Formats: sequence, structure tokens, C-alpha cells
Amino acid sequence: MLDLEDYIRIIPDFPKQGIVFKDITPLLSSPEATAQCLKELVQLVKAKKIDKVVGVESRGFFFGTLLAQALGVGFVPVRKPGKLPFTTIKQPYELEYGWDALEIHEDAIAKGDKVLVHDDVLATGGTAKAVCQLVEKLGGEIVQCNFIMQLDFLDGKDKLRKYPVASILNY
Amino acid sequence: MLDLEDYIRIIPDFPKQGIVFKDITPLLSSPEATAQCLKELVQLVKAKKIDKVVGVESRGFFFGTLLAQALGVGFVPVRKPGKLPFTTIKQPYELEYGWDALEIHEDAIAKGDKVLVHDDVLATGGTAKAVCQLVEKLGGEIVQCNFIMQLDFLDGKDKLRKYPVASILNY
Repeated sequence: MLDLEDYIRIIPDFPKQGIVFKDITPLLSSPEATAQCLKELVQLVKAKKIDKVVGVESRGFFFGTLLAQALGVGFVPVRKPGKLPFTTIKQPYELEYGWDALEIHEDAIAKGDKVLVHDDVLATGGTAKAVCQLVEKLGGEIVQCNFIMQLDFLDGKDKLRKYPVASILNY
Repeated sequence: MLDLEDYIRIIPDFPKQGIVFKDITPLLSSPEATAQCLKELVQLVKAKKIDKVVGVESRGFFFGTLLAQALGVGFVPVRKPGKLPFTTIKQPYELEYGWDALEIHEDAIAKGDKVLVHDDVLATGGTAKAVCQLVEKLGGEIVQCNFIMQLDFLDGKDKLRKYPVASILNY
């Protein structure tokens, strides 16, 4: 059993001064660590019924796609505005200074779909909350917000208190 | 056996007038079509020895990650400038009007690594060529440039004539 923390590279002051970035590229470059991380992410879901995995641009695409295939369900990308080519709905969310938005294809989730939301890191929770709102606007039900890592000091769980949250590593 | 073309959605005039975009989100949303596409991508590689799969931001991340796990090797993301947190090397490439660039972590490829480059679509080949140049700068050897789709009328193969190119669908 590998210690997955050994595969997370700590990068101080990225993308800006004062932020300690958790880099998952060492994890991705190890097939054994990737396989174990995927197995642990699947275990977080336990026996819950899932119809779709939604992954958040871009780092949520790596394990989001793997999770969907491991669970035998479809994968749905949520992307920055203007990136998805078909008809979309949009959800704005607040940043430290200003606003950004995320989009999902309007046909990506069917009414009643049980949805697993995946991203690599839970930080402030702003992105994940916007993703949950997009899924709910389309009639989907959030079964879990699922992360490799959770940065506890940023209280991201508060923004997601309506939803079950699970992660493998806590910082 | 599914016809994977049924899972590619044709979007006229995206991202701009005159471009006929090939949308793979219907493919991703079907676990059966995704599994078959992955199997066919693996078959393109045949019995060649591969040490790393390199996937191109962002749509190359989906099947790039799946391919790496299926082949039991590491996955390496190539990203737009400023996105990768560790020390990178950069390769500029020409667009229709102007320039863009791609980056790779300098420790992502070891000297002599046999590399499979994956992206969803081969269009003009400019992006894929830049990725190959990054890999070669780090001492890697390109075993194949591997795509879901190839747009033959754009002659992307010309830019990649130094490298073996393979794809599942031709348009």
C-alpha cells in the first residue's frame, strides 16, 4: 500500500504569493499510485448508486474519467465559459476578487440522475458548489462531492454543507 | 460493436464561423462507447513498448488518462502556459493568426522514455507537433501520435511526418 501523500508535490507561492499548491502530476506519472488513488476514490462512494460522474476543468478530468469508467457510468465535463460546444447552462461563482463562471451541456444530466461530482482539491468550495448548482438546475441529485485532497483550513465543507463530501487526504 | 461515429456530435461554426467542431461529450457520457474507444486506441499502439502517455490540455486528458492506466504506464499533462506549477519548458507554435505555446514539467519525461502522445482530434497538427518537440527536448522518443479522430482535409499528418500517426475515425 503506497502512501499517496508521497505523490503530492508541495509548491509554495503558486499560482500566487501565499498559496501552497498541491501538485498531483507525480501521482499521475505513477501508474501504481494512480491505480491506488482511483481505488480509494471508488471506496469513498461505497455502494451508492451513481448514474454520472461530473468532473471539473481541468484537473478534475483526470480521475473523473477514470472514476466514471471504474463505476461503469458516463462522464460529464464542466468547463469554463465558451469551451463547451453545444447548448449550455451557466453558473457564476465568487472568487476572492471578482467572479467567474462554469458551464455544463444542457443535455448532460437527465432528471433524477444520481451524480458524483469530482475534483482534485477541495479548497474554498466555490467551484464545487457551482458544479452542484449546475447539476441541480438540470434535475440531477448530488450523491457525493469527491476529492483527492481537502484543505481543511479553508472551510470548503461549509459551502458544501448541503452535500455529502468525501476525500482521501486532509491538509 | 458500437459505431463510434454515432457518439461524435457535429457542431457547425464552433468555436468560430466556418469550423465544423467534433464534440466528444456524447462519447464520454456513454460508458460502453468510452470503453470501446479506449480499447480501439490501445489497439492502435499494438505491441509497442510505451513508458509514458502524454495528453494535451484539455480534451486530451480524458482518454490520455484512461490510456495510461490501460497500458499500465504514467500519464503526463501538457498544458497552456502558466498552468503547470513546477519548473517547465515551453514550446511556441503557430496559429492561423499569431502564436500560442505549450508547457511540460521538466521532470515529466526521462531520457530514453518511449512516449505515446494523445489528443482527441488531429486538425492542422500544430499542437501535436509542439507536444512532440517538448518530449524530444526532454530526451523522450515519440512512439506514436494517437487520436480519436483525424481531419484529413487539414493535412495535419504533413506537420507530423517525422512521427507515426494513428487514429480511429477519419473525416
